[in-house]
Amino acid sequence: MERIYFDNASTTSLGGEVLSAMMPVLTDTYGNSASVHSFGRDAAQLVDNSRDYIASSINAKSNEIYFTSGGSEANSLAIIGIATANRGRGNHIITSKIEHPSVLNACKYLEKSGYEVTYLDVDKNGFIRFAELLGAIKTNTILVSIMAANNELGTIQNLKAIANTVHEKGVIFHTDAVQLYGNMSIDVEDIGIDAMSVSAHKLYGPKGVGCLYISNKIKFDPIIFGGNQERNKRGGTLNTAGIVGFAKACEIANRDLRTNNHKLRELSSYFVNKLKESVDNVIFNADTKQKLPHIISATFVGVDGESLLTKLDLNGIAASLGSACTSGSLQISHVIQAIGINNNDAKSTIRFSLGKNNSFEEIDSAINIIKRSVEELRAFSSTYGAKTRKRKGDK
Amino acid sequence: MERIYFDNASTTSLGGEVLSAMMPVLTDTYGNSASVHSFGRDAAQLVDNSRDYIASSINAKSNEIYFTSGGSEANSLAIIGIATANRGRGNHIITSKIEHPSVLNACKYLEKSGYEVTYLDVDKNGFIRFAELLGAIKTNTILVSIMAANNELGTIQNLKAIANTVHEKGVIFHTDAVQLYGNMSIDVEDIGIDAMSVSAHKLYGPKGVGCLYISNKIKFDPIIFGGNQERNKRGGTLNTAGIVGFAKACEIANRDLRTNNHKLRELSSYFVNKLKESVDNVIFNADTKQKLPHIISATFVGVDGESLLTKLDLNGIAASLGSACTSGSLQISHVIQAIGINNNDAKSTIRFSLGKNNSFEEIDSAINIIKRSVEELRAFSSTYGAKTRKRKGDK
Repeated sequence: MERIYFDNASTTSLGGEVLSAMMPVLTDTYGNSASVHSFGRDAAQLVDNSRDYIASSINAKSNEIYFTSGGSEANSLAIIGIATANRGRGNHIITSKIEHPSVLNACKYLEKSGYEVTYLDVDKNGFIRFAELLGAIKTNTILVSIMAANNELGTIQNLKAIANTVHEKGVIFHTDAVQLYGNMSIDVEDIGIDAMSVSAHKLYGPKGVGCLYISNKIKFDPIIFGGNQERNKRGGTLNTAGIVGFAKACEIANRDLRTNNHKLRELSSYFVNKLKESVDNVIFNADTKQKLPHIISATFVGVDGESLLTKLDLNGIAASLGSACTSGSLQISHVIQAIGINNNDAKSTIRFSLGKNNSFEEIDSAINIIKRSVEELRAFSSTYGAKTRKRKGDK
Repeated sequence: MERIYFDNASTTSLGGEVLSAMMPVLTDTYGNSASVHSFGRDAAQLVDNSRDYIASSINAKSNEIYFTSGGSEANSLAIIGIATANRGRGNHIITSKIEHPSVLNACKYLEKSGYEVTYLDVDKNGFIRFAELLGAIKTNTILVSIMAANNELGTIQNLKAIANTVHEKGVIFHTDAVQLYGNMSIDVEDIGIDAMSVSAHKLYGPKGVGCLYISNKIKFDPIIFGGNQERNKRGGTLNTAGIVGFAKACEIANRDLRTNNHKLRELSSYFVNKLKESVDNVIFNADTKQKLPHIISATFVGVDGESLLTKLDLNGIAASLGSACTSGSLQISHVIQAIGINNNDAKSTIRFSLGKNNSFEEIDSAINIIKRSVEELRAFSSTYGAKTRKRKGDK
């Protein structure tokens, strides 16, 4: 059976060029980059080059990049590390209701130890409201963390405007750019980002590596302790091969940015149009131009999302209910809830996230299977007819 | 120039069989193990098998293994995670003065937030003293963390006796087994270990992966937040390839345990005897049978250790002053200080750590270079004659 992978926002396959860059490191450059001998220096050189590239790609300095084990660690480090180091300045954090669980759960953890967290609402497309952000900032606010592009909707926030608002109040601005980096060029200086999380495996890099960019102006504490690595801010022997692969993946993503964006836009609008033509009563969430086109959130009215996913999976198609991080739980996606979708429709919502390796042929195959699956599920559902309606304000 | 690697306690090369096990994962099994579709299940199956193997190898249950980015994260998670989750029971932690920086720095961090830490002294061979441990345990003691085998000396603590003492007082026992696992079989049930840190790259596995074993009876908080991964205790997409490589490295280490131990004992005694024959006034620290033979701590009286390392490095030989984690700093090794060596001798102390891939021929070459380098440095040192003496009690 042909398998079709439409879950690229969850993770991507490892790029061939990326693996090629990693291979000589895996086989030969085994020194510990913290060692001063030649084996160590060889590794350190590769790490330095990788750090330099990643820093330059976002207009940061090399010593503002801290390698982590991925996006969740970067987010945890940003939230907890900044909060604890700046405790003297205040104990209030602002974030949004549609953040990644790593941000939300780090915030919940801080709430247990005397921090106060405001979770901003978002509009029906997933944008935070400036008036609400501005109103939430208090004299004891130390950190605002708003994700760059949402992982379930694709919605890209107005980062520069957020940064300006936050900085006017003298507050630190962190953004989770795990979904955005590699899909759009980001200049942290120009936008005004103080801290930013990136993950390799979302951009055809290896799993288990990522980084936190954090401006030299910002104080933060480590969450993983160890030796002198990462300027005493993140202990642990550096994963040289992973870091080299990460930098190579970033390089390729930036090199091919236009081509990939063009392809993803074409694929996505083909997918959406085909789906609209083939299946009735599908609502596309976050219907905005300001989004990552390849993340498609679709509500199949009257269809149980889990049943649909199972049918798709049996036919070789991978999609997801929401973020993979919350899979296994029967909770309704907090993101879908936050954009005001009722529980029934939320349970009927599926995320398709396309990738640069997908093809129009795959979409054709998939649409046929989706159409058939939805029809079967609706036929099976005695109440579907009664549910057939569109949401207020939807096209 | 032939390069000779005697820094295996810092990191090892990636085993060929390990890389072979990782390759199909890197190229094909790219799903997110948290995803419920077939791509995800394929990855999850590999993670489950790896977890099962590692758990069984230490007589633990599979759901007592938490994958981390390595030993430093495992140590940080154990110390901080256990301390914060058990804060209601007390705020006192006991560790030793010769722990890895990840343990010591996590403890120092906790001291800043209201925890009290006792750092036990060790004897001249690096063993903690039971009377001191027993005397240190108080009613508010929640955790004792004592490393299994020291990374600079090789000294293997009397884990079972420590565990008994600690458990008699109802206290949790964590051990950093990063250097021991793979060199000795460990039964956590039999020894009575509640939590144990392991790192892949110390046993010919990949960098960037390790685990914390933690008994189901022990409460602990996460330090990296995220989704439902690792039973909500460690966020972040699992590094499938790294985990598969880690398990394979464990499997090979356990399979070849006797052969490797035999070889390392032979190589190490050959190295020590040759060095004794060739170079005057070398003191071997931690002169005990109860140690990892491949970690050799040698004090070259009257020789500046850094200068010696530089000379060795210029001749292609990799050794280290102490742990790689503290390299770059001019501090004297805290381990060497703790075993009562004076500052001058501490500065003259070098660690050679042999590995299963080293050969007798490499040792012959290295000894010649060491001999020549030491002679040159001593000839250059006007004060060497005056310093020539043995320490009290040394053979």
